[in-house]
Amino acid sequence: HEVVIESPDHNTELELLPQTQIVNSLEAFRERVLALKQNNRFKYILIFKNQGASAGASLEHIHTQLIALPITPEVVSEEIAGCKEHYEKEEHCIYCDLITQELKDKRRIVCQNEYFITVVPYAPRFLFEMWLLPRSHSARFEQCEARHLDALDSLFKESLLRMRTVLNAPPYNFVFHTAPINGNHDNYYHWHIEIMPKLTKMAGFEQGTGFYINPTIPEESAKILREAQIKN
Amino acid sequence: HEVVIESPDHNTELELLPQTQIVNSLEAFRERVLALKQNNRFKYILIFKNQGASAGASLEHIHTQLIALPITPEVVSEEIAGCKEHYEKEEHCIYCDLITQELKDKRRIVCQNEYFITVVPYAPRFLFEMWLLPRSHSARFEQCEARHLDALDSLFKESLLRMRTVLNAPPYNFVFHTAPINGNHDNYYHWHIEIMPKLTKMAGFEQGTGFYINPTIPEESAKILREAQIKN
Repeated sequence: HEVVIESPDHNTELELLPQTQIVNSLEAFRERVLALKQNNRFKYILIFKNQGASAGASLEHIHTQLIALPITPEVVSEEIAGCKEHYEKEEHCIYCDLITQELKDKRRIVCQNEYFITVVPYAPRFLFEMWLLPRSHSARFEQCEARHLDALDSLFKESLLRMRTVLNAPPYNFVFHTAPINGNHDNYYHWHIEIMPKLTKMAGFEQGTGFYINPTIPEESAKILREAQIKN
Repeated sequence: HEVVIESPDHNTELELLPQTQIVNSLEAFRERVLALKQNNRFKYILIFKNQGASAGASLEHIHTQLIALPITPEVVSEEIAGCKEHYEKEEHCIYCDLITQELKDKRRIVCQNEYFITVVPYAPRFLFEMWLLPRSHSARFEQCEARHLDALDSLFKESLLRMRTVLNAPPYNFVFHTAPINGNHDNYYHWHIEIMPKLTKMAGFEQGTGFYINPTIPEESAKILREAQIKN
């Protein structure tokens, strides 16, 4: 379990940092993943942030967490299995298909640049949920080329700033989804970041069913996020 | 979606009601399940409570919810599949085996009477999680005999009171787990109530893995709950 502290400043948040500091953090994550992969004990490396007490943060100071696990979590295995099934049927990566469809439809796009795109997914579990994906196919975050980290950083920062502006600096979680260490998932898996503002509570219904109740229409959330006036 | 209001009193909670009022509520749940089962559209009926704002309650006044669903939720299907697998291997219901084991081991028992038992499960997801089960095998809550409702009520109330005393009236959820409407699950499924005090937050790690972090030892939680001095 490692903690990456993105800034010495106690009173800041990721989206408020100057761009070079976010790039430095992304580099730190990537370097730690590359180092931890050398250890055979580890099967999966999870990078995530809990921002704000109601999103589960137990420390106030800005930080992101990395946990290397001796097994591949079920959430990851199920996602991988779904991607594989789609690839076997369609001979395409499902996330590449999703990007093509979102670029054509346009209504769920939040922001984009040459290398990355942020969308509100077609069936979001949470209000104002966003997914940030690399536009060209790549199974692993740690394979992200150094020359693309600037573009990733700038879109990541912009996505978080849009969320911050629209929802008034909400508590949030983000989780990096990347391929497990072992196995060749290169053809059908596509790494991405899921960003989830914490606006509602998981309660009895969600516990008992695994279903999520989301009272917002994704096209409307995306429009609000896309049209927000942000200061960079 | 139906809401059962257990008391006209705005400032009370289920465990503080006189016994007859809890029996009346359990009767109301059972009667509504029996009535809704006649409607072919429904495949599963979920009974659950969100108590306290941080457990997701949006209304202050005491209430329990019932949602009839047109599909069987994945959480339920997975549990049913696990029970079936155990039954096919062992020729026993897994929950009957659990009760036998807990009665022998004793350390995870919270309280019991002639017909019901409450335990802290062997691998609880949440701090002070409790499961209340009928001691004799039965797949469906609505099959609970009227003469057993008194015993159910008294153990349900006692379990909630123990939790209230130990954790200082915490927010909590409970969820009834019962067999889906269609199909014969009688041999291998065993209805029960899962009671989950809301003391920690679901955050990035849980989202990204499906794993739960529980810093308490179940035998210790059970001991504390069992030994609490409660007023009935």
